[in-house]
Amino acid sequence: MTLNKLLKLLSTKDYLAIKNELANLFAADIAELLEQIEDKHSIVVFRLLAKDLAVDVFAHLTMKKQIALSKLTNDDELSEIVNELYFDDKIDFLEEMPANIVKNILKNSSENERRLINQFLHYPDSSAGSLMTTEFVDLKKHMTVAQALDIIKATAPNKETIYTSFCIDSNRKLEGTVSLRELILSPSDTVVEEIMCKEVLKVDTHDDQEHVVELFKKYDLLSLPVVDHESRLVGIITIDDVTDVVEKENTEDFHKLAAIYGNTKDKLLEGSVPNAVLLRLPWLIITLFGGMLAGGIIQVFEESLTSVIALAVFIPVIMDMGGDIGIQTSTIVIRGLATGDIKSGNIWKCLIRETLIGVTMGVVCGTVIGFVGQIWQGVPMIGVAVGGAMIATIAVSSVLGAFLPVLFNRIGVDPAVVSGPLITTIKDITGLLIYFNIASLVMGI
Amino acid sequence: MTLNKLLKLLSTKDYLAIKNELANLFAADIAELLEQIEDKHSIVVFRLLAKDLAVDVFAHLTMKKQIALSKLTNDDELSEIVNELYFDDKIDFLEEMPANIVKNILKNSSENERRLINQFLHYPDSSAGSLMTTEFVDLKKHMTVAQALDIIKATAPNKETIYTSFCIDSNRKLEGTVSLRELILSPSDTVVEEIMCKEVLKVDTHDDQEHVVELFKKYDLLSLPVVDHESRLVGIITIDDVTDVVEKENTEDFHKLAAIYGNTKDKLLEGSVPNAVLLRLPWLIITLFGGMLAGGIIQVFEESLTSVIALAVFIPVIMDMGGDIGIQTSTIVIRGLATGDIKSGNIWKCLIRETLIGVTMGVVCGTVIGFVGQIWQGVPMIGVAVGGAMIATIAVSSVLGAFLPVLFNRIGVDPAVVSGPLITTIKDITGLLIYFNIASLVMGI
Repeated sequence: MTLNKLLKLLSTKDYLAIKNELANLFAADIAELLEQIEDKHSIVVFRLLAKDLAVDVFAHLTMKKQIALSKLTNDDELSEIVNELYFDDKIDFLEEMPANIVKNILKNSSENERRLINQFLHYPDSSAGSLMTTEFVDLKKHMTVAQALDIIKATAPNKETIYTSFCIDSNRKLEGTVSLRELILSPSDTVVEEIMCKEVLKVDTHDDQEHVVELFKKYDLLSLPVVDHESRLVGIITIDDVTDVVEKENTEDFHKLAAIYGNTKDKLLEGSVPNAVLLRLPWLIITLFGGMLAGGIIQVFEESLTSVIALAVFIPVIMDMGGDIGIQTSTIVIRGLATGDIKSGNIWKCLIRETLIGVTMGVVCGTVIGFVGQIWQGVPMIGVAVGGAMIATIAVSSVLGAFLPVLFNRIGVDPAVVSGPLITTIKDITGLLIYFNIASLVMGI
Repeated sequence: MTLNKLLKLLSTKDYLAIKNELANLFAADIAELLEQIEDKHSIVVFRLLAKDLAVDVFAHLTMKKQIALSKLTNDDELSEIVNELYFDDKIDFLEEMPANIVKNILKNSSENERRLINQFLHYPDSSAGSLMTTEFVDLKKHMTVAQALDIIKATAPNKETIYTSFCIDSNRKLEGTVSLRELILSPSDTVVEEIMCKEVLKVDTHDDQEHVVELFKKYDLLSLPVVDHESRLVGIITIDDVTDVVEKENTEDFHKLAAIYGNTKDKLLEGSVPNAVLLRLPWLIITLFGGMLAGGIIQVFEESLTSVIALAVFIPVIMDMGGDIGIQTSTIVIRGLATGDIKSGNIWKCLIRETLIGVTMGVVCGTVIGFVGQIWQGVPMIGVAVGGAMIATIAVSSVLGAFLPVLFNRIGVDPAVVSGPLITTIKDITGLLIYFNIASLVMGI
């Protein structure tokens, strides 16, 4: 069903037709439609969905729409939906809701679940604990394959994944994992201990989500167990939640490269204008200061500039080329550090290589601009000054772009955050210093 | 085992100890160790691995190391490893190998497989066909669950995933999918047709991999069937290959934002220096031209500049702030378009919002620099000229940063490629024009 068709059916109040059309759609597609229509219409459509589908659609909605819909439903209706969500989706939702609504929903939960929800709501943002779900299959290692399969069959409808089961001892300590693949392939009287994998990859509830993502990528995992500080199994993380994290982290890195502070895209694209300004201004202050410092350099050489005003003509091209190449180099290095392509083993090789590339590009661009500038302005030796300054500025920018991210990475500062404005500022100041000094030297001013 | 320990054992030629240590490691970890040691040592370690593990380790190696190792093995040894790889890994490897080695490996394959390999080698780069594997479970819809499970058990060791099976008719047309979860939960005499999902998400062999990634993310898939132009099932794509694509595409987008041409990170980080220069120079030529054009504007206003040389002091800060804010805006918009957060429904709202944010930041920064500049330089009205120019330049850059990516996206040009250098150039030229015109006007020069 297209958006237009839905809107048309809504305007004619043909709810039966909508209900029939919705039955043929995937939950993700229904969620996409709901996102695009007004809240008062969304709730009408949402109520037409069968209970199971409604829960699935709700899980696919954005936080913004979830909150809008929950304001339009009564408490019972809402807690009925929320209680059916998978545990990780439920926590994500509850985290954003006001305390009184959380309380109302918890009212309908068992005491055990209430305790668990409270515990999960306290895991730090971007920790493994905040990503995990409690709906996994746990087995005992002395069970037979047949017993294990019976447990899986009996509990499967409430588990987020049944493709990996987790073996725990009487203290809930994780002893091993066994895949459904292994269980299916083994004779039914085999004891689980014989086929389970004992070298288990796991994370701690407080490990950073970036570490979780790395493990999933490196070992091609579908799920990963999470243990507390006493090695007790408390949850699992599944691959679908990891792909969301990857996208979110990449978006954050993009924003950091553009010198944007803070880490939620929602606030950037949806929040108020003053809010967005506050996220975007802080790092620009470095540029503002740097630009004025660069102006100070120009003022120092005011006399040279007055005697050969043509020197001013080449300020933008030297600044811009230095800036672009510095950003190129730092982006390549920052990305290489993030993906692990640049690591301690090859770091010096990379830095030297980037420097060489920078010098090569400087020589190419400097030679071109030197000749063009000489012919264009005709002032004696101006081509040498401009070309020389271009070579030096590009070389400096490349070195900065290569070394600054590595340096920040070493001292534990995220290189994506600070590199941009800092490179702009330093290359401005050094570039202008080099330019006017070479000009004074070769042109005798 | 740490790298140091491995190197020590290698130097003492204690191969038995190495073999024992390796047995406790995951394939991905062994691959990581091999990447860090010399090729001649790698091959020694590689030969110590049991056959199955060796195949798994080989699949985890980078293309560069795979090629290095294959040069050090004899043909029989190599084709034994390569023939055991999962089909998609095999194709990835063969694509990079010289024709004579491919021929040698194909010699040991069945005629059927040779035909299939040749077909796969012809799918375009970044198409769904180039990502898929042929190792999936296919069923007939009239089978019972018990029969289906028997087939899965019998063929599982050679299949990349058994968690989804694919039902095909006698012409290999895809009729539905059924998850192992459904099969396990259903009574054994149920006919597969009753439980299979008939609304199947699928892609064509020639669909772009970006489309594949979108489907996996939107519908939380673990695998996706690929059909040819006659709807016949030819392969499946599994989630582990998709996460690799996501990282690769994100890296490409990072590089494009930094105005780097071409799309392989290997060439940027590993290739020859002249090669890297060729990938990085092309888009910079726009900046080179733009910078000279901006110089031309300065030359036009040479007289104003000579009479108030202090005007030159503020050229860097106006250029830099305009540039940084333009890049911020374009990065937010380009990323929003890529993640789908900005779409046709809300595009105008976003553009207007970004413009508003730009004007707000312009007013804030312009007011600051206007006051500071007036006090610093003391030339009558220079603060008004500088502040006004800053406001206008930042506003123009924001509008460019917001509208150019959307415009390029509309006409089918990748916005990440062209936005950076173009924004730098246009804001330079308009910024200087605005600056000198306001200065002429308010300062009477």
